[in-house]
Amino acid sequence: MEKNISEFREIIKEKRMIDSMLALLQWDLETQTPKGGYKLLSEMIGELSLKSYNLTTSKKILEVIESLKKYEAELDEVTKKEIELLEEEILKIKVIPAEEYKAYSELTAKAQGIWEVAREKNDFESFAPVLEEIFNFNKKFIQYRNLEGDIYSIILNDYEKGMSVEKLDSFFEELKNEIVPLLKDIKSRDREFSKKINFKVEKIEQKKFSEEILKYIGFNLDRGVLSESAHPFTLTVDKNDVRLTTRYFEELPFSSIYSTIHEGGHGIYEQNIADELKDTLLADGASMGIHESQSRFYENVIGRSREFWYGLLSKSKYKYSEIENLSLDEIYKAVNEVSPSLIRVEADELTYSLHIMVRYEIEKGILSGEYQIKDLPRIWNEKMEEYLGVVPETYSEGVLQDVHWSCGLIGYFPSYALGNVYSVQILRAMKKEINIEGALERGELKEIKKWLENKIHRHGKLKTPKELMVLVTGEELNPDYYIEYLKEKYRKIYD
Amino acid sequence: MEKNISEFREIIKEKRMIDSMLALLQWDLETQTPKGGYKLLSEMIGELSLKSYNLTTSKKILEVIESLKKYEAELDEVTKKEIELLEEEILKIKVIPAEEYKAYSELTAKAQGIWEVAREKNDFESFAPVLEEIFNFNKKFIQYRNLEGDIYSIILNDYEKGMSVEKLDSFFEELKNEIVPLLKDIKSRDREFSKKINFKVEKIEQKKFSEEILKYIGFNLDRGVLSESAHPFTLTVDKNDVRLTTRYFEELPFSSIYSTIHEGGHGIYEQNIADELKDTLLADGASMGIHESQSRFYENVIGRSREFWYGLLSKSKYKYSEIENLSLDEIYKAVNEVSPSLIRVEADELTYSLHIMVRYEIEKGILSGEYQIKDLPRIWNEKMEEYLGVVPETYSEGVLQDVHWSCGLIGYFPSYALGNVYSVQILRAMKKEINIEGALERGELKEIKKWLENKIHRHGKLKTPKELMVLVTGEELNPDYYIEYLKEKYRKIYD
Repeated sequence: MEKNISEFREIIKEKRMIDSMLALLQWDLETQTPKGGYKLLSEMIGELSLKSYNLTTSKKILEVIESLKKYEAELDEVTKKEIELLEEEILKIKVIPAEEYKAYSELTAKAQGIWEVAREKNDFESFAPVLEEIFNFNKKFIQYRNLEGDIYSIILNDYEKGMSVEKLDSFFEELKNEIVPLLKDIKSRDREFSKKINFKVEKIEQKKFSEEILKYIGFNLDRGVLSESAHPFTLTVDKNDVRLTTRYFEELPFSSIYSTIHEGGHGIYEQNIADELKDTLLADGASMGIHESQSRFYENVIGRSREFWYGLLSKSKYKYSEIENLSLDEIYKAVNEVSPSLIRVEADELTYSLHIMVRYEIEKGILSGEYQIKDLPRIWNEKMEEYLGVVPETYSEGVLQDVHWSCGLIGYFPSYALGNVYSVQILRAMKKEINIEGALERGELKEIKKWLENKIHRHGKLKTPKELMVLVTGEELNPDYYIEYLKEKYRKIYD
Repeated sequence: MEKNISEFREIIKEKRMIDSMLALLQWDLETQTPKGGYKLLSEMIGELSLKSYNLTTSKKILEVIESLKKYEAELDEVTKKEIELLEEEILKIKVIPAEEYKAYSELTAKAQGIWEVAREKNDFESFAPVLEEIFNFNKKFIQYRNLEGDIYSIILNDYEKGMSVEKLDSFFEELKNEIVPLLKDIKSRDREFSKKINFKVEKIEQKKFSEEILKYIGFNLDRGVLSESAHPFTLTVDKNDVRLTTRYFEELPFSSIYSTIHEGGHGIYEQNIADELKDTLLADGASMGIHESQSRFYENVIGRSREFWYGLLSKSKYKYSEIENLSLDEIYKAVNEVSPSLIRVEADELTYSLHIMVRYEIEKGILSGEYQIKDLPRIWNEKMEEYLGVVPETYSEGVLQDVHWSCGLIGYFPSYALGNVYSVQILRAMKKEINIEGALERGELKEIKKWLENKIHRHGKLKTPKELMVLVTGEELNPDYYIEYLKEKYRKIYD
């Protein structure tokens, strides 16, 4: 048994090393690679992905798993969970022919470059065929698995174990019934709080402040970096090397503040997974939805509170002088202004999930065959009009705005909405044990981070999202709290 | 034969891919990696280096080479040259017992860390034993090859084919006789031109100007990037992805300008190697000396001319207002001020090769057994006093200043001096065909780049430095022109 375990550890270590290299290449591609380098980088990513595929589907790994399963009762919890996850992954991958797997990896690496240019040039046509290919690959890969049930539910379940179209449909239905009317009411009041915070701040100053905020909320910059990219993201090489990006608009200093806090939330999660899980397959977030709950928690639940700003402004050495001229109430209202926007990543807390609903319905429609790729711009605009009451005039501000589909991330968007729901459910649980407002006002965010680390972060992938939510909050996903939270918070602000 | 060739190409492609990945990891390590990530990155680099070593010494590669050599007469020029270079590399490596090769790799990996701490703490004693080991390994590795002739000549020849101690001795002799007295004369005049250009410029402004200059001299930023690091360097992923770094000192804006131009020269070389050599072993500079000739050509030969500044200032959209207040003559004299310094990388054009002479004589002395490691600080200081008239007060500013020896780079320093000599010899040849001053004044640096591309860059490693110099200038390395150029230029400036 010991021999088998050490063989297993050897393979997992190799697998993690390949994943870390892939992460580094991806990081380079999105933050550094010049145009001319895309091709070679994509080839490298294809090569390494193939290696990872070969390793995961190798006879050797299957044999080691089989032999370990003989001792199942004696295995520790971590190894057992690793085997479970690995078997799921193998089942998912080994049905895909190697050459298709490699072709798909190269396609998605290449597609990001094509998407970038298409978005820049407002040219949907140049991206459409690639997008079609990506959707087709995804469809085909699911079909290879020969599973029961609806394709989109299978995809959703891959990102968020236990999730299904039925559950999401009912959540979005509630959202439509409760939030769309609330939004219409708010819009009719025509208030503009945010003008006050849209002053010009030089990029270099914003960068300084972003780094200070990261430290303030508890992200460790000795074990991570903050860089820049067109689309902010978080990427983990390993828990001691967690990389975030943000973006700076000189006229909108609060944009970088909130994308930094958001990615910081992801980063804090990654940095605080237990050391015992390092170099195992569990050194990862429980799910994308849980991951998103952490970023949303930092960004919205605490980051857009009065108490957070009170603490930050009194504790931070560095701040923009313009901020100091504002009252706490002015800041609070400005960072919580509801203003239906065209761009998801700039959306306020109230309308954010409505953006997700647009993408969710579109993905569902394409996968079911109801929608054609060529019609997406029109469908996009119709849905935006219906739910948010705004219509993009360009593709770049509409259907071309997100990087996800070009990366092959189909079925990923709902994670954002789930993250919102989870984050409020977690807030409710935390409130029972911690004086959150007090901690924020005193600038002691460590207390909050400790709680999250202990309840969520340290477990890594050891628990499913469902198990984790039951453990932390006493119940499974329950969207009611989120809807209630939104209604209460925004009625107060706008009444 | 075709089968053998395609097998060969397959192996070379794999080798190049590993090299490109190593380059990317190295790039990340020096520009992005947070402290926490050093360990994993180093492990990855170790892993890939081992893979590269195994590939180069594999049975398979030897067999393919043997089978290809049967058709030698029919092979194209590129493949023939690749085989020649590969065999040289194999001959060099395979005589070393595996365990010694590994021990040496570990030693040099470790030595860089020891050197860094030693330099920081001004502690030569802690570095001396490691340095001794490195020199001993190098001696032993050369002896394994059982070649005729002097050890240092063999080492030199590895870096610069055709080079020998005799040739370098006679060059440095000339330098000593001609430049050391000239330097003494200049020092006695005690002029300070450079104060005028040491005004403060914000980093972000310097960065903007650096990028503009790169474009101006012909570096293609679509196929390359400019980033930052403690020590500027150039690194090639492939010819379409060439990466440069510079460094910014707010009080010394011309420092970043010249390190950018220097690395830009290396970068232009790499970007303009012929497409036909891509993915071959010849997609590289002819030698380190020739590479250095290109960076020096841009940095000094043209970059420190009046005409360059005239063209740059009249063509560039962006410039520091402080520069515009200076006359061309003031700029010219300031960027050419002679000021013997302790640190090689900060040396001016006139004294630079004298710094190399110090290192050259020391390396020669250690390898011949004439010098003992423990006496290096004393010997270093004596030579500095004799050639440059300045004596370091600390080891850090003296014998501990360069990273090279700790990396095992013995015999590398002369490349820098050779680069200087080549650059002037190339200038002389170019002058016969191009009106360089005119091109510079009109800001048409394309003409100069085209000439270099055609005569030097495109050949990659297809020609030896000697062949290249004969082809381009009609004769082998001839230091007379360089000495003459220095004397003429600096007498004029200081008369």
